[in-house]
Amino acid sequence: MTPTVKSAQEALSELSRRTPEPPINWLMSMTLTHPNLVSLAAGFTDQQTLPLKESRQLLQTLLAQPKAGRAALQYGSTPGDPRLRQLTGAHLHQTELAALGSTHLAEARDPGDTSDRLLITSGSQQLLYMISECLCDPGDIVLVEDPTYFVYLGITASHGLRCHGIAMEPDGINLRSLEERLEKLRSNGELGRLKLLYLVTYFQNPTGITTHWEKKRRALELLRRYEKHAGHRLYLVEDAAYRELRFAGPDVPSALTLPEAAGRVIYAGTFSKPFASGARVGFGVLPPHLLQVVLRIKGNHDFGTSNLLQQLLRCALDSGAYTSHVAQLRQRYASKAASMVRALRRHWRDGVNWVEPRGGLYVWASLPKSLKSGPNSAFFKRALQHEVLYVPGVFCYAADPDRRRPDHEMRLSFGGARVADIDRGITRLAATFREIADKPRR
Amino acid sequence: MTPTVKSAQEALSELSRRTPEPPINWLMSMTLTHPNLVSLAAGFTDQQTLPLKESRQLLQTLLAQPKAGRAALQYGSTPGDPRLRQLTGAHLHQTELAALGSTHLAEARDPGDTSDRLLITSGSQQLLYMISECLCDPGDIVLVEDPTYFVYLGITASHGLRCHGIAMEPDGINLRSLEERLEKLRSNGELGRLKLLYLVTYFQNPTGITTHWEKKRRALELLRRYEKHAGHRLYLVEDAAYRELRFAGPDVPSALTLPEAAGRVIYAGTFSKPFASGARVGFGVLPPHLLQVVLRIKGNHDFGTSNLLQQLLRCALDSGAYTSHVAQLRQRYASKAASMVRALRRHWRDGVNWVEPRGGLYVWASLPKSLKSGPNSAFFKRALQHEVLYVPGVFCYAADPDRRRPDHEMRLSFGGARVADIDRGITRLAATFREIADKPRR
Repeated sequence: MTPTVKSAQEALSELSRRTPEPPINWLMSMTLTHPNLVSLAAGFTDQQTLPLKESRQLLQTLLAQPKAGRAALQYGSTPGDPRLRQLTGAHLHQTELAALGSTHLAEARDPGDTSDRLLITSGSQQLLYMISECLCDPGDIVLVEDPTYFVYLGITASHGLRCHGIAMEPDGINLRSLEERLEKLRSNGELGRLKLLYLVTYFQNPTGITTHWEKKRRALELLRRYEKHAGHRLYLVEDAAYRELRFAGPDVPSALTLPEAAGRVIYAGTFSKPFASGARVGFGVLPPHLLQVVLRIKGNHDFGTSNLLQQLLRCALDSGAYTSHVAQLRQRYASKAASMVRALRRHWRDGVNWVEPRGGLYVWASLPKSLKSGPNSAFFKRALQHEVLYVPGVFCYAADPDRRRPDHEMRLSFGGARVADIDRGITRLAATFREIADKPRR
Repeated sequence: MTPTVKSAQEALSELSRRTPEPPINWLMSMTLTHPNLVSLAAGFTDQQTLPLKESRQLLQTLLAQPKAGRAALQYGSTPGDPRLRQLTGAHLHQTELAALGSTHLAEARDPGDTSDRLLITSGSQQLLYMISECLCDPGDIVLVEDPTYFVYLGITASHGLRCHGIAMEPDGINLRSLEERLEKLRSNGELGRLKLLYLVTYFQNPTGITTHWEKKRRALELLRRYEKHAGHRLYLVEDAAYRELRFAGPDVPSALTLPEAAGRVIYAGTFSKPFASGARVGFGVLPPHLLQVVLRIKGNHDFGTSNLLQQLLRCALDSGAYTSHVAQLRQRYASKAASMVRALRRHWRDGVNWVEPRGGLYVWASLPKSLKSGPNSAFFKRALQHEVLYVPGVFCYAADPDRRRPDHEMRLSFGGARVADIDRGITRLAATFREIADKPRR
């Protein structure tokens, strides 16, 4: 390198400079340096129920057909395989009808078949990324749950977006908190920079909370009321990544069943978690005018998700293998969640709060507020000494200048860990808690 | 929609507004409205040689192993499967050693094993996208071949980059044209906005041209000479997408064998075209400081390419199935290229120039300069009436304000078309030419 050339960093884009190291990388480096670690941090899906036999049979049958098999190994189109889009739309429609049937919501509407405004993506993560690209410029504002999915916060940071957290309650965001935030943005003239509200509505990552339909309805109503001040539509992005992993209680209709949903709701779904996280096929349902733009963007990203993966999912849906696999998965996660709850009840009686999950992969646990759980805390370090890893809750909070990030919580995953490790991990965390809580505070 | 809300367009980002409709979509819509069309436009790979039997056997074996099979269906890591990275690095190293052995270039260097600065991507397209994100801000400048890969032009437009085309010769870019461009940027004070030179070095899309090693060496030397004026490194991005599809002549060592390559060359490779375009696995070799940034960006895109696809490629490389498949593929494309050349020679004697391809998927044909071939030209429309489609050459030229886009060329693909259709397509184009060329010009 010639001495006249300054730091190589200088050729980097603004986006590069803004893009943080994902917490997930740091967490993974912990597992490398602590080989005996019990990880309750990873968002992995259950290893034993991965559809090994099903995938083998489906791919075997698919690739035994010269025409369909060859088509699976060829480029597809940017929106995705027409038949997979159709099956996905039909599956989603059935899901909504079932949810509507069990809930009796007078104002909810059958969204009908959405397959003509549905695209296939490489996991729902890719959709979240492209939605940010599609709607947001640096300096724009998005509203998120407080706490929210931390990888989404990575996307917003990378794109230079400002995030405000909306307080959470057991049935979703606090609507007063949403209204106050909208009003504040209106009064300080920043509503024109607001683009969307991002909600993880089913068994939320990280809290496990499911948003009540009525809250989604009123949230969208509030957004609509402020549109005239914003000067443009305000979108409700519903991330339904964990919807299929429900093992207790009835399903809730999605925001697609809200009045006025077709023009304002972006629905992100995925087959990664309910089928195979190694075959990353997600999908999105978008207002038609946004779909066109997102497809142009996806054309530049990859001009279409792998056709082979799409055909695997098509066969899984077509054959019924998907439905029976999800049923099996729900039982498995119900049992793993019960293991974690049992361990929490047994080992961890006082000072820690958690909510029993009804779906998804996570338990959100709160230490006493005075006890920090962050990556540099005594608790985290002691937990590592005890060979147990969790996701520090602080990672899940947006950098909202209007409040300090809470730093006394933990995301505990029962999804990927083995049953024996779930108990072991909770025991170790309980021991950590006893040791740290008994010590005089610094 | 309430009347107070202005056009829904207004919520779109700058990126959305800049992102053009990809020409590929428009071309595909032609095939839908003309069902009997012979398409010499699509960049599809040969349907008959897609590795149907191989993929079936490899997946069958993989998914019969409980541990490896389940791992393939689980999330992986952002850089990609360690074993696939290792095998890819080894394959690339072998390729370079063979190319170096057959060329005797005194200054070329064995790049060694690059697997520690190699990442797996969803096709090489995703790498090109992330490189743009990593290095370029709106208003930045990139240098491209004139003509170049048109999907790359879509990426640059989307990111608001300014492209300048460097004239092409039969062995790569014209170095004088490159130097003049660099000098012009220096003298008008814009060199600080220049980030990279993008070259498709093997059987280029669209021209079929392969860049001589010496040209790569001197291009990188020129870039280095201007770095002190730029104030940062200037990268050489080598897109080697078609390298494996070589059916005549010796291989050329890549830019990774250039002196000083490790800090300045970005190499984009892919298994899409040589193995299966439906299993989109690409890879990149990057300077270590850029790799770290691109991995952070990829973490936000998708936190890793589908593990199942990666394992399929790992097995293909590990078992030798990949190598034997590529050998078969080369024969097939050699024969299809020969069919196209034969048809061109037979039907199209005067007024049209083309170069016999030695690899890749394309023949680049030039009409007389006075005869336009663009999407609104009489020629294009008459060709459609004759039920034959090509990629208008004008799509492959950057919007460089310093010259008019040439508009008398065509990209003709022999890759995806059936052999009978290749002859039929060329016959129809020749008929189109006779009819248009004989007419008085408007």
